[in-house]
Amino acid sequence: MKKHNFSAGPSILPDEVMQQAAKAILNFNNLDLSLIEISHRSADFTQVINKAKALVLELANLNGDDYEVLFQHGGASTQFIMTAYNLLPIGGKAGFVDTGTWSSKAIKETKIFGEVNTLASSKDQGYKYIPKNVIIPNDIAYLHLTSNNTIYGTQYTAYPNTEVPVVVDMSSDIFSKKVDFSQFDVIYAGAQKNIGAAGTTLVIVKKSLLGKSGRTIPSMMNYQVQIDKSSMFNTPSVFSIYVSMLYLQWLKDLGGVEAVEKLNRAKAKILYDEIDRNPNFIGYANKEDRSLMNVTFNLVDDRKKERFEQLAKAAGVHAINGHRSVGGYRASIYNAMPIESVQVLVDVMKSL
Amino acid sequence: MKKHNFSAGPSILPDEVMQQAAKAILNFNNLDLSLIEISHRSADFTQVINKAKALVLELANLNGDDYEVLFQHGGASTQFIMTAYNLLPIGGKAGFVDTGTWSSKAIKETKIFGEVNTLASSKDQGYKYIPKNVIIPNDIAYLHLTSNNTIYGTQYTAYPNTEVPVVVDMSSDIFSKKVDFSQFDVIYAGAQKNIGAAGTTLVIVKKSLLGKSGRTIPSMMNYQVQIDKSSMFNTPSVFSIYVSMLYLQWLKDLGGVEAVEKLNRAKAKILYDEIDRNPNFIGYANKEDRSLMNVTFNLVDDRKKERFEQLAKAAGVHAINGHRSVGGYRASIYNAMPIESVQVLVDVMKSL
Repeated sequence: MKKHNFSAGPSILPDEVMQQAAKAILNFNNLDLSLIEISHRSADFTQVINKAKALVLELANLNGDDYEVLFQHGGASTQFIMTAYNLLPIGGKAGFVDTGTWSSKAIKETKIFGEVNTLASSKDQGYKYIPKNVIIPNDIAYLHLTSNNTIYGTQYTAYPNTEVPVVVDMSSDIFSKKVDFSQFDVIYAGAQKNIGAAGTTLVIVKKSLLGKSGRTIPSMMNYQVQIDKSSMFNTPSVFSIYVSMLYLQWLKDLGGVEAVEKLNRAKAKILYDEIDRNPNFIGYANKEDRSLMNVTFNLVDDRKKERFEQLAKAAGVHAINGHRSVGGYRASIYNAMPIESVQVLVDVMKSL
Repeated sequence: MKKHNFSAGPSILPDEVMQQAAKAILNFNNLDLSLIEISHRSADFTQVINKAKALVLELANLNGDDYEVLFQHGGASTQFIMTAYNLLPIGGKAGFVDTGTWSSKAIKETKIFGEVNTLASSKDQGYKYIPKNVIIPNDIAYLHLTSNNTIYGTQYTAYPNTEVPVVVDMSSDIFSKKVDFSQFDVIYAGAQKNIGAAGTTLVIVKKSLLGKSGRTIPSMMNYQVQIDKSSMFNTPSVFSIYVSMLYLQWLKDLGGVEAVEKLNRAKAKILYDEIDRNPNFIGYANKEDRSLMNVTFNLVDDRKKERFEQLAKAAGVHAINGHRSVGGYRASIYNAMPIESVQVLVDVMKSL
């Protein structure tokens, strides 16, 4: 039975990526060896990671002289530690905008390393909105933003203007719409939502920013070490990086970020239109801050819950339950999600 | 062409593990979804990680009341940081036996967190041996050992007796021979050599040891947090953990650690016997400390290099070059390596 996979992450991947990944497990590059049994320092894998890096720079429209692309272990949660180690001087301050669970976690971890200035928060309204007109002081070492909030379904449409370095957690919306990446200094994203499989984290670092925190940094947490070792200070997450490379190539072949943005806007529109039209449903996030990636909504009448979920299941709709911390529904419609699947969900909503 | 894969890591996996992994990429558990596109919190994946943990305890013959099994991000190199954060009190000392590159790296990283007492080292003889009769002081917070030294081809046959907690890096020989795991307090191993695919690290922790370092530990580096969250503080490395589960199940089905030890000893014997018999070759490591996993050797006459490597290549022998830091040859004959492949290499050596 055809499944329509709205999982929030790990999440849907393009069919051809899955086919190629399965093939590489059995016989990679006609080596008569599996992708996962060859050395990460072999020419065959080095080509994979180099290609993935080049695709990232191309899709982000960034210059490799200024920015370095890394594939790191440990997810966004490890980037909370790495950004502090590398960018927050001893005695310095970091500024955060708190737009939900992931911002809050980043704040908590950064406080272990130094002072945190929470410049704005939308916690007062259940993180339904993105704070606007935030005043960014000049005495912070960096500003940290979470570009898309998977749990609440909010997303930045414009980022604050500031002179200080900006760190952005783009785990759930990287390469889903056109963004001027040069306004950021560190961009990181767990691969498992929009660009690959769980097990690797994309990090893009402005090189001129490094070496200034004055901290003694363990090698695995040190961006400069990871740059010097081309993301191979130790054995990288081979399979996950390969899947990312395939995904990024798929994205490029599709026409790049501009092309996928059009598709993403079309997918989000038919779903939000149905939420707004259908009296059975109500959107969670404020309209102006709605995410193109994670569409959050609730039933107006909870007595229809069982029937709605039965209809969805019968149609092959998978994983639309909201995050356990907020409940309701969440349809994650990342880059790889076809509009046909979104239409199936819309049809289910119509039929309720 | 059939390849005989002697890669030091990532390295050979059982054929059936590869087949099942490829199948799961296309359709996992007959869900009509890929393993790598479903939630890590789904019942299907929770079963995978729970089964992997149970297999680890069974193969290690350890009690789950005393020890916790974790699947962590970041490789052994991240365990250098985690062991220090969790076990080394501020102002405390850690004791190390330096048996090669990986011990040295562990020492270097631990020094960032506190005092290191290097109790013994075999550096004086190019790490060809394992130091014996090392005196372990009682004032160290823990003793750190590297059980098998991939690069030099040495391995502990007996571990030091001590009252202090023992941390052991078993990345390259875990579950390859019978060991009393209860003599250790933390055991860690990157999966990509003996139990799975790159991208996850097995950690076995004695729970009673935790919470005593007095440090404020970032969540991702905190064993207690990882225990409390069942290795899912953040998205785990789904595919790599699945491959480990398959591998551990394969090992159990084979008859467990005792059965694989017999095979490993037989494989090592035919290779070392040939090295000792054949006047063209000379072993690198001292005989009494030879590794069952990584067999290191050199040509007596380097003029035979080209011919030896041609013969090996023609026979399908893959990846026997020594580590770039020592040169020569290294045949890694981990659990999944069939004795038939070792015989192919022996035949090549005979034919030189």
